[in-house]
Amino acid sequence: MDRRYFNRRMLLGGAAFATSVSMGPEAVGAHEPAPAMTADGGSGHGRARPARAVKAARKGGQVKRIKMFTERLDDGRVGYGIAGGRATIPGPLIELVEGDTLQVELHNTCDVSASLHMHGLDYSINNDGTRMTMSFVQPGETRTYVWHTHTPGLRPDGTYREGSAGYWHYHDHVMGTEHGTGGIHKGLYGPLIVRRQGDILPDKTCTIVFNETMINQSKHGGPDFEAVVGERVEFVMITHGDLYHTFHLHGHRWARNRTGLITGPDDLSRVVDNQIVGPGDSFGFQVLAGEGVGPGAWMYHCHVQHHADQGMAGLFIVKNANGTIPKYMPYHH
Amino acid sequence: MDRRYFNRRMLLGGAAFATSVSMGPEAVGAHEPAPAMTADGGSGHGRARPARAVKAARKGGQVKRIKMFTERLDDGRVGYGIAGGRATIPGPLIELVEGDTLQVELHNTCDVSASLHMHGLDYSINNDGTRMTMSFVQPGETRTYVWHTHTPGLRPDGTYREGSAGYWHYHDHVMGTEHGTGGIHKGLYGPLIVRRQGDILPDKTCTIVFNETMINQSKHGGPDFEAVVGERVEFVMITHGDLYHTFHLHGHRWARNRTGLITGPDDLSRVVDNQIVGPGDSFGFQVLAGEGVGPGAWMYHCHVQHHADQGMAGLFIVKNANGTIPKYMPYHH
Amino acid sequence: MDRRYFNRRMLLGGAAFATSVSMGPEAVGAHEPAPAMTADGGSGHGRARPARAVKAARKGGQVKRIKMFTERLDDGRVGYGIAGGRATIPGPLIELVEGDTLQVELHNTCDVSASLHMHGLDYSINNDGTRMTMSFVQPGETRTYVWHTHTPGLRPDGTYREGSAGYWHYHDHVMGTEHGTGGIHKGLYGPLIVRRQGDILPDKTCTIVFNETMINQSKHGGPDFEAVVGERVEFVMITHGDLYHTFHLHGHRWARNRTGLITGPDDLSRVVDNQIVGPGDSFGFQVLAGEGVGPGAWMYHCHVQHHADQGMAGLFIVKNANGTIPKYMPYHH
Repeated sequence: MDRRYFNRRMLLGGAAFATSVSMGPEAVGAHEPAPAMTADGGSGHGRARPARAVKAARKGGQVKRIKMFTERLDDGRVGYGIAGGRATIPGPLIELVEGDTLQVELHNTCDVSASLHMHGLDYSINNDGTRMTMSFVQPGETRTYVWHTHTPGLRPDGTYREGSAGYWHYHDHVMGTEHGTGGIHKGLYGPLIVRRQGDILPDKTCTIVFNETMINQSKHGGPDFEAVVGERVEFVMITHGDLYHTFHLHGHRWARNRTGLITGPDDLSRVVDNQIVGPGDSFGFQVLAGEGVGPGAWMYHCHVQHHADQGMAGLFIVKNANGTIPKYMPYHH
Repeated sequence: MDRRYFNRRMLLGGAAFATSVSMGPEAVGAHEPAPAMTADGGSGHGRARPARAVKAARKGGQVKRIKMFTERLDDGRVGYGIAGGRATIPGPLIELVEGDTLQVELHNTCDVSASLHMHGLDYSINNDGTRMTMSFVQPGETRTYVWHTHTPGLRPDGTYREGSAGYWHYHDHVMGTEHGTGGIHKGLYGPLIVRRQGDILPDKTCTIVFNETMINQSKHGGPDFEAVVGERVEFVMITHGDLYHTFHLHGHRWARNRTGLITGPDDLSRVVDNQIVGPGDSFGFQVLAGEGVGPGAWMYHCHVQHHADQGMAGLFIVKNANGTIPKYMPYHH
Repeated sequence: MDRRYFNRRMLLGGAAFATSVSMGPEAVGAHEPAPAMTADGGSGHGRARPARAVKAARKGGQVKRIKMFTERLDDGRVGYGIAGGRATIPGPLIELVEGDTLQVELHNTCDVSASLHMHGLDYSINNDGTRMTMSFVQPGETRTYVWHTHTPGLRPDGTYREGSAGYWHYHDHVMGTEHGTGGIHKGLYGPLIVRRQGDILPDKTCTIVFNETMINQSKHGGPDFEAVVGERVEFVMITHGDLYHTFHLHGHRWARNRTGLITGPDDLSRVVDNQIVGPGDSFGFQVLAGEGVGPGAWMYHCHVQHHADQGMAGLFIVKNANGTIPKYMPYHH
């Protein structure tokens, strides 16, 4: 078995970028676990795993205060970071629980205006992140944004109000054009998850952004994500730019509902492994790595054929507990 | 705060067209309210509103008879109207309740053939609105179409039949090509809502049609829609033409189910503020204007970046009860 | 009534290809009926039908072993078949029930490598059908693939695992490029249905594949499908290639859930007659032919206007029990 058949762009791309810098559960408070149940990893055809605790999202209501920075990176790219010199593309993962409030002090280190526009959150018009509402940040300036979330529940009129939970995202809305086309094109975007109290927490979260024919701003293939069989891995999939795409993951599936997880026999949601997406869309889901299929280097890619052929692909590398990966021989160049 | 940053095309476009001419609840009978509950507008972070009645859709079963006209407008556009000289783009809002029958006497005032093709309704093949079935209207002629709707329920075989309720639309299917490409390109389309008995009725309905890079046939930005904080505003979103789009609304969200409204804690539907759509698609939802976010000029736009930059954007202007709108200064030219 | 208005390409296309070769219920075991209920065809506005039995999917757990072949057809096309000389485009319909295992001995009669990549099924990385995993078939060689399915149910950790049921598909993943772009472009794809025990079985299944501006590999319009009023007809809709499309069916609708069928009053799924799709997507649904609308030649087409105008359309011909079809006069040339 040699590697001559393998598309080098995937592996080069995989090495080129960190894909997601989680702010960590403590930083934004999403991961204070509820009482855990004992659990088996449920690896199906894969190796048996030791019992694993399922953690659940805590109760919301906290106020999270963080600093974020816009920074120029190499190759004309621009990213968001949570500390000076640490910008990444995509930007840091922000996790909240319904009921939380998020305050971000955004320092714009670029020489052009920038902003933060949040999908999914509640905010007064002063926090829209648009030029029209004057809620952006001049070069070298700082601005504090405040966004809220809410739990679902009955309104006084007896109707039911949805909660804020969802796989959302944030991006610049002013660089280049009124709609932030320049900022988005350069990398000013990131993932945002709002959980409901009791939602199952993952062991790790992977962010995949399709932006034109790039994945996470790399033109040479997407990043590789590693996990051990049975780990609960969460994917957040965001789309930007001008093109539509179809996200496909080998060997794993998700439901087209709020969490991406089927909740029981009455859940009628479609289960898919391929989904059409367009700019501004986001969705997410959790899988047990290798469940029913075992370890391996599982491709994810855009299923639009000429996008895939241009390198819009990466690997979800699911290892045995001993670190081995059948049929997988990383390319050394 | 000045307006130099604001994209003028939005406002010019907003002034250029009436976007939706409701036939009125009495005209098509959808709005005979069921016994109302007392209600608070639920303005969240916005101003408190006086108690507001929630109205529900009546029982279906009525026969609605209306006249419609195809008429040439300026700039090569063609529209549907419910009276001579009153054609609009999009055409009149047609509202039904499951069980209703709709009869339309269509008078084609154009010098080429035209038709009405309905999405979502039941009809014999004579009412398909296509050339193949000879169900179109020659220039200067009149034809009566009949469409039915039905309630959901058990079939004799024990399976369950879906009802007709949905956010649908109608359009020409013969002008220019066998598929009405010329008619659709000129403006021959409109919104159609079929409600289920008991569905919550909105205070107002706004129709947004993405057709190529136009909104409601304007190349210079979409219309602005106005509401007061707490009003129940319904959006019907329809797509036509050759392009795909992503519809995004700032500060408000909807569920991807039949009504766009979450019905309770067991409703697992995804809540989104951005949705990919293609030609022939339609969906709808209701929001409480400014709920949890308060008043302001909230943008809606196509999130495909070069579409937005070409002016595919408009405003959902949510006013305080006293008429003020924070951070908003209309452009005067 | 003459046929000069009718787009000839539809009918020419309809005659050109067999569209789906079912392996038959016995071949793959999906159709062993559960105890049937008496049933009326539920033809609504159509003619009354004699009582009809509703059949339900059997219990899963069987091991199905079949042979498949890749074969060159005329015009540069390549297809899958279940016997030598019998390849079709799309390939044979494969039906399973959750719990079944499928073994396919694939013989590649082409002079280039080919593979089988399955959406929706469980398999070890050796059965991925990709070059990277060396799971393809050299010219003239044979390889046995094994895929599994599973029922939904509780995991040991108390969370719920989705089942394998769905409207899936299979395709080549190696011909031409690492992503099988050449194989897919030539016709190496087919439908795959995994049913849940108790799922309602159709009277017939029709497969529609949008691939570039072709339907089922015909550039001259899609096939025509025939049924009698009241028959339970299942559609499997698959998309391939580079383009997005919108699938529209006249006079019939489906729900956007797992089965395409509304299950009862608590099923909140959207009911639609138009749906945006992209490469790698698949969905399915069942209709009672002509329910509520009666017999006729009902168009299905891509609603992207220039795709429809290029011939991406076909007919769902619903006949009366006596074989007549109102308003329909097949084109004789």
